[in-house]
Amino acid sequence: MKVKVVTRILEANDRIAEENRKKFKDAGVFVINLMGAPGAGKTTLLERTILALKPHRKIGVIEGDIVGQDDADRIGALDVPVVQINTGGACHLDANMISEVLDDLPLRELDMLIIENVGNLVCPAEFKVGEDMKMMVLSIAEGHDKPLKYPLMFRESSALVLNKMDLLPYMNTDMNKVRNDSLALNPKLKIFEVSCTSGAGIDAWATWLSGFRS
Amino acid sequence: MKVKVVTRILEANDRIAEENRKKFKDAGVFVINLMGAPGAGKTTLLERTILALKPHRKIGVIEGDIVGQDDADRIGALDVPVVQINTGGACHLDANMISEVLDDLPLRELDMLIIENVGNLVCPAEFKVGEDMKMMVLSIAEGHDKPLKYPLMFRESSALVLNKMDLLPYMNTDMNKVRNDSLALNPKLKIFEVSCTSGAGIDAWATWLSGFRS
Repeated sequence: MKVKVVTRILEANDRIAEENRKKFKDAGVFVINLMGAPGAGKTTLLERTILALKPHRKIGVIEGDIVGQDDADRIGALDVPVVQINTGGACHLDANMISEVLDDLPLRELDMLIIENVGNLVCPAEFKVGEDMKMMVLSIAEGHDKPLKYPLMFRESSALVLNKMDLLPYMNTDMNKVRNDSLALNPKLKIFEVSCTSGAGIDAWATWLSGFRS
Repeated sequence: MKVKVVTRILEANDRIAEENRKKFKDAGVFVINLMGAPGAGKTTLLERTILALKPHRKIGVIEGDIVGQDDADRIGALDVPVVQINTGGACHLDANMISEVLDDLPLRELDMLIIENVGNLVCPAEFKVGEDMKMMVLSIAEGHDKPLKYPLMFRESSALVLNKMDLLPYMNTDMNKVRNDSLALNPKLKIFEVSCTSGAGIDAWATWLSGFRS
């Protein structure tokens, strides 16, 4: 019975995600679903990415949080179009939430829309929102066991950004294990090592990302 | 329609949680629901806690993960009764999952049962499992904005363990903001600062915890 409910929700979600995808394609905007655990550094990576890409690309942002608009305020300060979604209790964004805010963004003026999902390594990977690409941020302070414990997100992502590399000297994180387990789950996964604090690795990441267009 | 489904699921869950609670009370076991984001250090804190309390209290553990049994292997190595639940896709433990494994634990021999929930700051706070007390672990590497972004878990928890304090010199985390925002959400919240790496703060935490009995 419970499984039935979930299936129905996911099917309904996928239909709306497909409608979103058509709208994004018509508008000529490339859409990224940015996922990661609470505190992985999604918003800080987004700030760094916007600053790096802004001279070349028109970027818009949708921020997903349970409550509050701190992240939208941070992104808005960079002078890019941003909409904040508050999910209430929901631990992930779904296609319908995205559909409801599309009219609040100048889609046709954008090259790229980055959707920052709720901080969660589980459900955001299950709910399509109409994106062209999923990517995830993992803080190395989260430890090396995350790929095997949350495999779906690693499988679904095209890129894995390993953040907070500046903390590596003070951690026991086995980076080879992170890399090997991630690639075993998803051999096509593109892996970047960055520090959003120092800025190390951001250029390589932003250059790769700027290659994607609708 | 979607809201209706969620309500029904939560009502059914609460009924089963109440049945679990009666079984725990009959068995004389005090039950803790241990929550936190992926990589907060829940399992490492659990290892430290078991080692500190083991001379005085009989502890049992239920481990909740999407897949795998790494955490149960780690806890089992400490020679305490442990059961691993794999939730499949579910981002939280629910009362029914707990109910189904209770016969696999020697409840009447235990003083305390610690249930380590799936790594997630959202849904584990919504689903009661029959516990006497909820508590949460927050890694200071997750940043100081977590209380305001994930308020329910801070409201529902009796204790907040701030872990990875050894990383503080290398972080920009504003500990006053973490403390003040947490206490504004939940004035009765008991806050501990620990490092599971160095062991700092574990004694005070374990002494406090050992005061709870069924």
